[in-house]
Amino acid sequence: MLPKAVTQYLQANRQKHLDKLFELLRIESVSNLSDGSCAAAADWLKDYLTGIGMNCRVVSTAGHPLVMGSIHRSDDAPTLLIYGHYDVQPPDPLDQWLSPPFEPEVRDGWIFARGADDDKGQLFANVMAIEAWQAAGGPPINVKVLFEGEEELASPSLEAMIGDLTDDLAADALLISDSAFYSESEPSITYALRGIVFVELTLTGPNCDLHSGVYGGVVANPVNALARMIAKMQDDDGKITLPGFYDDVLDISDLEREAWAKLDFDEQAYAARIGLDAVAGGERDDFSPLERNWARPTLDCNGIVGGFIEQGAKTIIPSRASAKISMRLVANQDPEKISDGLRQFVRENTPEGIKAEINFLKNSRPVLLPKDSPAMTDARDALTEAFAADTTLICCGASVPITEVFQRILGLDAVMMGYGLPEDALHSPNEKFKLSQFYGGSVATAAFMQNLAKSTS
Amino acid sequence: MLPKAVTQYLQANRQKHLDKLFELLRIESVSNLSDGSCAAAADWLKDYLTGIGMNCRVVSTAGHPLVMGSIHRSDDAPTLLIYGHYDVQPPDPLDQWLSPPFEPEVRDGWIFARGADDDKGQLFANVMAIEAWQAAGGPPINVKVLFEGEEELASPSLEAMIGDLTDDLAADALLISDSAFYSESEPSITYALRGIVFVELTLTGPNCDLHSGVYGGVVANPVNALARMIAKMQDDDGKITLPGFYDDVLDISDLEREAWAKLDFDEQAYAARIGLDAVAGGERDDFSPLERNWARPTLDCNGIVGGFIEQGAKTIIPSRASAKISMRLVANQDPEKISDGLRQFVRENTPEGIKAEINFLKNSRPVLLPKDSPAMTDARDALTEAFAADTTLICCGASVPITEVFQRILGLDAVMMGYGLPEDALHSPNEKFKLSQFYGGSVATAAFMQNLAKSTS
Repeated sequence: MLPKAVTQYLQANRQKHLDKLFELLRIESVSNLSDGSCAAAADWLKDYLTGIGMNCRVVSTAGHPLVMGSIHRSDDAPTLLIYGHYDVQPPDPLDQWLSPPFEPEVRDGWIFARGADDDKGQLFANVMAIEAWQAAGGPPINVKVLFEGEEELASPSLEAMIGDLTDDLAADALLISDSAFYSESEPSITYALRGIVFVELTLTGPNCDLHSGVYGGVVANPVNALARMIAKMQDDDGKITLPGFYDDVLDISDLEREAWAKLDFDEQAYAARIGLDAVAGGERDDFSPLERNWARPTLDCNGIVGGFIEQGAKTIIPSRASAKISMRLVANQDPEKISDGLRQFVRENTPEGIKAEINFLKNSRPVLLPKDSPAMTDARDALTEAFAADTTLICCGASVPITEVFQRILGLDAVMMGYGLPEDALHSPNEKFKLSQFYGGSVATAAFMQNLAKSTS
Repeated sequence: MLPKAVTQYLQANRQKHLDKLFELLRIESVSNLSDGSCAAAADWLKDYLTGIGMNCRVVSTAGHPLVMGSIHRSDDAPTLLIYGHYDVQPPDPLDQWLSPPFEPEVRDGWIFARGADDDKGQLFANVMAIEAWQAAGGPPINVKVLFEGEEELASPSLEAMIGDLTDDLAADALLISDSAFYSESEPSITYALRGIVFVELTLTGPNCDLHSGVYGGVVANPVNALARMIAKMQDDDGKITLPGFYDDVLDISDLEREAWAKLDFDEQAYAARIGLDAVAGGERDDFSPLERNWARPTLDCNGIVGGFIEQGAKTIIPSRASAKISMRLVANQDPEKISDGLRQFVRENTPEGIKAEINFLKNSRPVLLPKDSPAMTDARDALTEAFAADTTLICCGASVPITEVFQRILGLDAVMMGYGLPEDALHSPNEKFKLSQFYGGSVATAAFMQNLAKSTS
């Protein structure tokens, strides 16, 4: 059980913590943009962490800065590194937000704002846990934090620098709170994440838009060609046709199949929440929805644009068209090999009269984490204590690319203990974070720190 | 030969006429928009026509107004109706214009501006011919003009009203100057135009953009689905797969095949002019480029948009995606039947988890005109006189929808004597019109009026 001083501090400071989170949420730290907002968020965090007694600094990078802080208690105590990110996804489409994305507000027990869940809310729950321990005389372990501003860009600067920060980041355990419970009544820790290859594919035809009557029938149309190319990337059953795409995919184990089949997955409710009659997607005959999302790779267009897109009619053969395409990868797919397959596919499927260009924007490996490490056990116990319900081990269809970098370069297996809920609308309009998850999360992190201290004492 | 008074007037007023055309080109009469610019262009024309002694009025419609003018010389003389349009295509992409689209300028003997060729320049060449005859004592025939502001929208208001204007528009011949020479050295009259069905196809999936990791594999993606649907509209040989699409297509006659084969079509030069290595398009094995453009139907995406289209990466499954799709039709295809085929195709090819909606934006029938009517002969002779070169009969891959309406409702076969050149970049950035075509066109129209007077006297 946590010391009363810790839990009482968290209880007594709920309004203050909410007000402070709102300050952070108001900073429009969209990492796609270079308008100084990310630096402002980093400065805000440095000031806050310094205020709670952490030794803290802002570290410049080629992109947005890192915030690093530490509390050293004892050379004999274990060290926990907590990672989080203060950058957020772009807020568009803006017209679908019920309240402005950077003007946070609480409605019916939920915080609404871009970044409320992903990841400012979860990050701040962890900060609150450190703060509570500080108020109770100091945490029982050494604590380091590393907050970055490029997670939504796949952490390019942090990945480039992490080798130089080995000493600063040395730790016995790593906590990443950037994931979700399976459901509100099923606290969960994530042990597998998908990787990603994200590209922009641009097809160019004639050197300017042409009259579709005067030239129609004689000139290859880049939009039609792009549609054909995208369509051809999957067969009629939804299987992805890029060369070698499935070569290294790890089969789902019988144990996993059984465990996931036991989880409550209400297809109708799931579909209804996003305005659909039924779930869909490829490979439906061979894999359940959870299997498809957790352990099968996908190929999705994230955006497409070409030619005349204003109101009304304009009869042209466009000069160019482009699509943003992401492939979610599962263990043991290699992003480089997948990228090579895409290059080959595009080369082989570019029709006469069209030039193709691929711009690789994001690239991260899938991650598999150990299910039974001591830190994992400490986290499960902490989560169960904080939320008064058994903790489940799950996978996640999304990517937290830095997790794989920590594993590969620092030799640190993350504990993916995240406090979001499936309905939080990450990356979507009206992103939200439940207040009870926000406060409960801070208790779980505080308990995790205590459990780590005990298990290694 | 034309009276000297006519040719000398045109010669003496070249600069004035260019200045006046520039005034008209400066009016941003994009018919897609409702900002009053089309009404301003109509008023400008009414003032100009009144100034040259025509009886003139502006006629309101449900959309942009008509300008109607007449000069009655004698009940015994034939009447020529001249049709043109003062509206223009949208100017975007603006960044590709070398000079602003609505700030006309002459460079190297060409007028650059949106509408320079299509159709303000050609329309004004006809006005200049009337003006020259007026200066020479009056035209040898009765003349009517009908200038509209919705040609680029497929003339919806004019088509709706034309039945009520039967008396006002009664004529013995109809001149439409809204087409091009086969080449600068080959003056041409067009006897076939393609029709069009233009639609916006919108696919909707989830009720908001979703995280592509959290939902990828379980939710149908509207962009991927749209790409598949567009791709499936044509087979690997470029044949269009909509039900019944080719049922009514008129075969190309042997006479036409032979005549077109004799025309100089330099594929390399044609392709190079638009920045391509070679011409392309479907049905290449069965039809020559001219045959494909003049007498075969096409299906082109004019624009496509969906999901995240800003700079950088955003990992979403978009809520919706839409494409503007035009089908160019040839004799004897029926737009209604083609629309039905499209509806059926979309119904049969909409995947689970996706809703499809078709918005029909434009619809016009293909046109075939007689090649040997008296008016056609008068026009051929006039064109040969004005440009000192034999006149060729050609087809056009584009649509001038009102031509079919004149034929069907007024029983008037148009003479499609246009003064553009193939390189005029209609609907594209840097649209242009050659000065020699502009001035030569006015002479040809004046000569046509004289020939009509003689052939019917």
